[in-house]
Amino acid sequence: MTATPRVEPVEPSPASSFGARLADTFATTGHLCVGIDPHEYLLGQWGLPVTAAGVERFGLLAVEAAAGRAGIVKPQVAFFERFGSGGFAALETVLAAAREAGLLVIADVKRGDLGTSVEAYAQAWLTPGSALEADAMTISAYQGVGSLAAPHAIAERFGKGLFVLAATSNPESVGIQTAVHTRGPFSGRSVAAGIVAGVREWNSEPLGSIGVVIGATVSLDDYGIDPSELARTPILAPGFGHQGAAVDALRSIYGAASGNVVVSSSRAILSAGPNGIAAAIDSQVQELAEVYAA
Amino acid sequence: MTATPRVEPVEPSPASSFGARLADTFATTGHLCVGIDPHEYLLGQWGLPVTAAGVERFGLLAVEAAAGRAGIVKPQVAFFERFGSGGFAALETVLAAAREAGLLVIADVKRGDLGTSVEAYAQAWLTPGSALEADAMTISAYQGVGSLAAPHAIAERFGKGLFVLAATSNPESVGIQTAVHTRGPFSGRSVAAGIVAGVREWNSEPLGSIGVVIGATVSLDDYGIDPSELARTPILAPGFGHQGAAVDALRSIYGAASGNVVVSSSRAILSAGPNGIAAAIDSQVQELAEVYAA
Repeated sequence: MTATPRVEPVEPSPASSFGARLADTFATTGHLCVGIDPHEYLLGQWGLPVTAAGVERFGLLAVEAAAGRAGIVKPQVAFFERFGSGGFAALETVLAAAREAGLLVIADVKRGDLGTSVEAYAQAWLTPGSALEADAMTISAYQGVGSLAAPHAIAERFGKGLFVLAATSNPESVGIQTAVHTRGPFSGRSVAAGIVAGVREWNSEPLGSIGVVIGATVSLDDYGIDPSELARTPILAPGFGHQGAAVDALRSIYGAASGNVVVSSSRAILSAGPNGIAAAIDSQVQELAEVYAA
Repeated sequence: MTATPRVEPVEPSPASSFGARLADTFATTGHLCVGIDPHEYLLGQWGLPVTAAGVERFGLLAVEAAAGRAGIVKPQVAFFERFGSGGFAALETVLAAAREAGLLVIADVKRGDLGTSVEAYAQAWLTPGSALEADAMTISAYQGVGSLAAPHAIAERFGKGLFVLAATSNPESVGIQTAVHTRGPFSGRSVAAGIVAGVREWNSEPLGSIGVVIGATVSLDDYGIDPSELARTPILAPGFGHQGAAVDALRSIYGAASGNVVVSSSRAILSAGPNGIAAAIDSQVQELAEVYAA
């Protein structure tokens, strides 16, 4: 029997908000986020079985390599979920090891729903003491930014964060994400811009806790998003090192908001294998530090 | 160690497609889908603990009541996920009991992602022999209908189904879901209509396996959707008996497509408690049978 994840609230001090912790990580350890994506082909390459035990070992090796080198990790939950409750038990072990190592953990789950259902997802991933506790989770607002009111409240209460899908980097997403609101508060703006604008209201200076996902190969202009709207919003940018995005394009893509970017890299690091991953992380951290120092 | 869910493909005959099985269920058992939503307040009302064991017991009691009375159940996965791996183990027990009882099971997970990640979600929920095997899953196309190519292929291969979020019934969703495509194949159409049109291509007569979610309180006109576009598409309609939708409004909402509707009812049934749930299901089945006979 698993105990309820409900705990008595401990209101976080402002200094312990997710946004504040993220800003601290940027300043001390840099912008790199190591994606933990135990693809089947990578498991094979790492000499691991395609089982819950295999993804657990993969995740623990990635955490061990990231600890002390990078500040942030992002497990792709789909590759654990594939193995059912056994995969979730493996993920719990990986999440606990990552948080124990002092890494900020973004659970890449892309959940989304309404009312008490989406609230339950936020309870699962953001409540202190929950088996699946992370520092932040990715989330979808297909049912409206307003549908995320409960996750937002839980994030604020416990010093956690959200990253709301806005402009993703895949070509099939362009139609929906550039579609234009014809009614309501975001009338005349694109779907992605409406999400950026809605999330912005939840964030305060210098860096808020409710971020957005904006792919590393998009042009903000295509969505009618001005970088100034992202001034206090964390940006999770997947796809560096794999989907053709070059780290030195950071400023040209995100402009004045490039200081808020979580630069996520998965396959380019993971394909170095268990013996090469530490060096691959060091190399990307160094490359990013040079870009941000320039 | 959990074994890989991969199995050698057994190509389903056309008669065993999800759409064919759903049509058969409609004809023999009716359109009612019993939502299995172990809200915290319902667990209390049922005298069950707010734990993984509590949601397991809740789910098994609901399955027992639905078996032989209704044809379809829909567990809301968020309420299981809240308890981490223990909650997923509970869900696995509930899913197995439901399928063993001959119920069609729609896993209400609203997953969504790209490429190999969304493929892994489909493997988790739709692969024969997977611990979390269901007959269909709900899914989000915020990253484009094209992002669902892999789940679509897996569903076709194994005789499973998808229900893609289109026009949900919450007021906060209207802005995004009525936003108008300005480029690409669905130019000039709303986001929800684009999803209906995209999914339609995947379905053949008389009833396909790739459905949409359209709430029980929407007007199709608001989204520019003509009921004829839904002629071969299953429709999952949550919210009957709770969000103000009356069963007798089925025809006015879905028009000529009302024959394809999975009428989902959760709280109105579950709030009858463990001693009243069977009678509540009987009553709703009877009410729906009268509507569809009229």
